[in-house]
Amino acid sequence: MTTTSTLSDWMKQSQAQIETALMHFLPSDLITPTHLHQAMRYAVLDGGKRVRPLLVYAAGELFSAGHSELTRAACALEMIHAYSLVHDDMPCMDDDALRRGKPTVHVKYGQATALLVGDALQAQAFLILAQGHCPAERQLEMLQILAHSSGSLGMCGGQAIDLDSVGLNLTRDQLEQMHQLKTGALLRASVLLGALCGQQLNATEHAALNRYADAIGLAFQVVDDILDATADSAALGKTAGKDAANNKPTYVSILGLEASQQLAQQLRHEAHAALESFHGQSSTTARTQRLSQLADFIVERSA
Amino acid sequence: MTTTSTLSDWMKQSQAQIETALMHFLPSDLITPTHLHQAMRYAVLDGGKRVRPLLVYAAGELFSAGHSELTRAACALEMIHAYSLVHDDMPCMDDDALRRGKPTVHVKYGQATALLVGDALQAQAFLILAQGHCPAERQLEMLQILAHSSGSLGMCGGQAIDLDSVGLNLTRDQLEQMHQLKTGALLRASVLLGALCGQQLNATEHAALNRYADAIGLAFQVVDDILDATADSAALGKTAGKDAANNKPTYVSILGLEASQQLAQQLRHEAHAALESFHGQSSTTARTQRLSQLADFIVERSA
Repeated sequence: MTTTSTLSDWMKQSQAQIETALMHFLPSDLITPTHLHQAMRYAVLDGGKRVRPLLVYAAGELFSAGHSELTRAACALEMIHAYSLVHDDMPCMDDDALRRGKPTVHVKYGQATALLVGDALQAQAFLILAQGHCPAERQLEMLQILAHSSGSLGMCGGQAIDLDSVGLNLTRDQLEQMHQLKTGALLRASVLLGALCGQQLNATEHAALNRYADAIGLAFQVVDDILDATADSAALGKTAGKDAANNKPTYVSILGLEASQQLAQQLRHEAHAALESFHGQSSTTARTQRLSQLADFIVERSA
Repeated sequence: MTTTSTLSDWMKQSQAQIETALMHFLPSDLITPTHLHQAMRYAVLDGGKRVRPLLVYAAGELFSAGHSELTRAACALEMIHAYSLVHDDMPCMDDDALRRGKPTVHVKYGQATALLVGDALQAQAFLILAQGHCPAERQLEMLQILAHSSGSLGMCGGQAIDLDSVGLNLTRDQLEQMHQLKTGALLRASVLLGALCGQQLNATEHAALNRYADAIGLAFQVVDDILDATADSAALGKTAGKDAANNKPTYVSILGLEASQQLAQQLRHEAHAALESFHGQSSTTARTQRLSQLADFIVERSA
């Protein structure tokens, strides 16, 4: 789709493409074990804003990456994200019964299956990325980024810090560190994988994308905390107000609502500023449009 | 170590090398999140026979693979195996309190941490394999095999069939299919990854290694079932007799003890026969020794 389409049209088209691709990259529920495959598809399909895939596509546009490789990377990231939601919702973690307006996987399929769904989705993510067709060295780099960002020094590590911090009075720095791992790492991986689908990155490009990703990653979490404190469950498609109920530290609890909203705006500006390093080349200025718009979307979203 | 050393000496040396390498490839427990990293190290270090790493080394010996790449692949496989044990032991799965003679991870660190330990170990396995130094195309093939063998068409899939089969009267074929996925897939991956550390495989080599792996994979499970029915918990380092208590189908429950013991011997012969295709070249005959001995070990083990 050309860069003249509206963000909303581009998002809808990209989300539809991702949905089709996820259907393809998930094992068919006609294949044994059918019950597990049904549950995996339930966990991933027909849900979510697909923020990580959108970031992959947007970063790929900046580097003129091929569509099929972007879609593959986007599906891998979305499967990692989906597995983390399945496990986070389980009774021994957040014990949540509602996700994207539907019963969570363990409520619908039982805890044992939910555990396996998450495990198998993680493996599937690495499988489809390892089957990609970028030059092999670059494909390996993408796999390293995905593994690092989802493991104990990324998403799982952030989740562990989150667990350990319930009831504690975290400083703003500690809260930021937790979120950089818990959600920021995978969002950053989305930006980097999208770019790497196009080309090897030089140090300047890498640093600029990191600055962009840090800003939108943090903004994403700040806005999540604002929405958790202000929106209702129906609008969110998940249980609202859970953080306060669980005595979890949030940006709203540490900074207050107004300062949190100011912080989100500041982070949006930082994201835009990071993209300016690509504006020197006239050919790439226009191609930062989607990344720029996604920074806006992340801050302005209402769910 | 030369091929003139005894199997016992070779195993001890290999196990010591794996232990050292796992200590290196697991995140330090001095790094944040320290609690998660402690638990990951507890789950992996100081335990088990390291059957998968031994298969990697043995297959690597056949193809003169380099030691450091074999060790990396062996650690990746052992981390996948260890994560599966952590998750399988959780209350929503087998609810086991004892593993390798020690409290299971969820008993020692809590269920939420156990869930994250498994998730993070899986990511770590893919990370270290993606950081390997075999030619990139071959490294990608190894990642594909690891992901496929551990996902819904491999280990996780076998576990799902196992869950669905509690209380059912499985046929021998159904039982075999379950075990080919649940334990066989990762054992096969161990053999293939060890070989691929040495060279790209031709179709004949691939088929022979698959025959060997199928035989020892099944033998491993048959012997597990025999030991579960005949050994005591202290000798096993885990709770014995659980399958019968849980009404799970086993080779012993379907075939009886004597026929199960005969089957294990038959599978040992099939494993040896599969290796004979490598005996045409005088240079490789001696190099099948460890794979041959491991088939014996798997059938003769008492724990």
